[in-house]
Amino acid sequence: MFEVVHQDTVSGARLGKLTTAHQIVDTPAFMPVATKATVKTLTPTELRDAGTQAIISNAFHLYIGPGHELIREAGGLHRFMGWDGAIFTDSGGFQILRKEFKFKLNNQGINYMNSRDGKRYMYTPEQCMEIQGALGSDVAMVLDDCPPWGSNRDEIRDSVCRTVDWAQRSLDAWCNDEQLVFAILQGGTLPDMRAECAERLVGMEFDGYGIGGLSIGEPKEVMHETIKLNLPMIPEDKPRYLMGVGSPVELLDSIYLGVDIFDSAFPTRNARHQSAMTRHGQVDLRRAALVDDFRPIDEECKCYTCRHFSRSYIYHLFKESEMLAMRLASIHNVHFLQDLMAGARTAISEDRFAEFRDDFKLRYSGSGNAD
Amino acid sequence: MFEVVHQDTVSGARLGKLTTAHQIVDTPAFMPVATKATVKTLTPTELRDAGTQAIISNAFHLYIGPGHELIREAGGLHRFMGWDGAIFTDSGGFQILRKEFKFKLNNQGINYMNSRDGKRYMYTPEQCMEIQGALGSDVAMVLDDCPPWGSNRDEIRDSVCRTVDWAQRSLDAWCNDEQLVFAILQGGTLPDMRAECAERLVGMEFDGYGIGGLSIGEPKEVMHETIKLNLPMIPEDKPRYLMGVGSPVELLDSIYLGVDIFDSAFPTRNARHQSAMTRHGQVDLRRAALVDDFRPIDEECKCYTCRHFSRSYIYHLFKESEMLAMRLASIHNVHFLQDLMAGARTAISEDRFAEFRDDFKLRYSGSGNAD
Repeated sequence: MFEVVHQDTVSGARLGKLTTAHQIVDTPAFMPVATKATVKTLTPTELRDAGTQAIISNAFHLYIGPGHELIREAGGLHRFMGWDGAIFTDSGGFQILRKEFKFKLNNQGINYMNSRDGKRYMYTPEQCMEIQGALGSDVAMVLDDCPPWGSNRDEIRDSVCRTVDWAQRSLDAWCNDEQLVFAILQGGTLPDMRAECAERLVGMEFDGYGIGGLSIGEPKEVMHETIKLNLPMIPEDKPRYLMGVGSPVELLDSIYLGVDIFDSAFPTRNARHQSAMTRHGQVDLRRAALVDDFRPIDEECKCYTCRHFSRSYIYHLFKESEMLAMRLASIHNVHFLQDLMAGARTAISEDRFAEFRDDFKLRYSGSGNAD
Repeated sequence: MFEVVHQDTVSGARLGKLTTAHQIVDTPAFMPVATKATVKTLTPTELRDAGTQAIISNAFHLYIGPGHELIREAGGLHRFMGWDGAIFTDSGGFQILRKEFKFKLNNQGINYMNSRDGKRYMYTPEQCMEIQGALGSDVAMVLDDCPPWGSNRDEIRDSVCRTVDWAQRSLDAWCNDEQLVFAILQGGTLPDMRAECAERLVGMEFDGYGIGGLSIGEPKEVMHETIKLNLPMIPEDKPRYLMGVGSPVELLDSIYLGVDIFDSAFPTRNARHQSAMTRHGQVDLRRAALVDDFRPIDEECKCYTCRHFSRSYIYHLFKESEMLAMRLASIHNVHFLQDLMAGARTAISEDRFAEFRDDFKLRYSGSGNAD
């Protein structure tokens, strides 16, 4: 179900194929985020046209509304949202462990307050699997306990124990045999804790492994070192998924180390905040100099936005608060990242990924604004 | 440049072709509104897919921002907004004659306050033509003086005189020989005033005539009677354009009388306010019963939205305030009206327009909500 097609000779980068019920996903792969069964502002057709093969939605968010039973009744999440590619579903644990849900954690699960009715409920590993089974996603992520950045050793040890225990309970509760199940490695940034968590989860033989607990406030180098340390602990024949990353440079640096799958709201959220990626760095689409800049966002880009519209037009749309502005920027940003991933895959297949990464970083470190 | 292809044998309805610099427009035609160089939430591709051949933008709004000179520099409005079909531009006079612009009207033009700098400016017929010439629209509408509903005879007489005078000045200021120029008939709802205005404007031989000053608060029957009275005053070989209309029933009733062209924000504004048209009447997309209604908005509709998404999904998107909701509803509503116009054209060509209209009205007078 996962096959490493080619291993780069210089770096840890690898070319792979993840076979899911709906779609064979070429890796390295980037997944746009569809928390509430929609990648914000975009249609499934636009995601496809951008080169997207997989997206990630959120089990907990969909459970809160419209409800997993309703989506089951609709024929599953693919049918409900009109997307026929692969769908990963995150457990939503990461989202609940925030102040707004007034959560209380115990070994049973996560106790949280639902703001829609003000009442408290439990969210358990078993329930999380049941929800994902009903949604019919291609890959379910188990519920894990992600400690905040800055937790001490005792707290991290607790979170590792809980994460491992919940992973086993999730396997026991697995209820949809068309669905792959990935576990999530925790352990903060403590090497021995990450090793212990990885060893125990790998022993359970999941279909793939998420590298969790990173990109939550720690310094970039610490994140990088932790990934480097964690990856060799995952068997080579399993897909490795770095959750919540991200930006073009982080993607390439992580692929270099051997990561296969990514997800992030980076391209779509930035687009809505008028920031676009170009081969020469980020461009602020509200910068005054764009008012009469009749070039596309990125002259080398083949996306719908860049083929039809100028920076000047998009600047005008943002200035007038026209929704089309966010759409056009989102189309471009998602396309840009998918194009980057396609380039990375080709480079790996030709054993020149290191060169590809370095060339990209050199150009991208300039500023698109400085054009 | 305008040809009546077929005259319905039963009603006043006519099938025509308006040849413009960018597009031959089949009439009866409905134009979505692109006030600020964008039909809200939609791309040009989506407008085309819905069957749109012409849109209408607003000279005054584009003059205020981003400016007609900038759009000229961009290669004209078509290039700027990526639309290769026909573009009409409204003068914007109707928009200025509102309280927010603190306007003062005199024979020279309209004195208004620009809220961006708080200063007062004049908007004249000559300037209006210069702006539209720079925009490069296919059809320019002359600046007219539309008196509010409830004006007295003296006020209406003044407005007719001014409208006629400004129309002549507009012709004299005509500066883009690829552009057609339409005048606008005023005269309130007074038969003799409408006759005088029409006679004088027809004498100037414009390329087409807008029927102005209606759909501004008067009773529906009064509007209907005024159109009926006004149409025979326009030569048969000139296109007749009813401005600001509208709803499916108003469109069909006006086509019946002999109107060729329409524009309205009705489909897109309603879509953003969660209201969709169906063959069985309007549907409120936030009505609770839709939560588990897995049918498309309209089961007979072939639009992108109806081919891919359920009422249940769109209800969910509106509930979660997802932008995609407004998009999907806008795609459907514009497609619905364009489909209605295509059906009307076919019916006229087969001399069965009266039947077509009556059948549609009968079904539409039900409620889509009652399904």
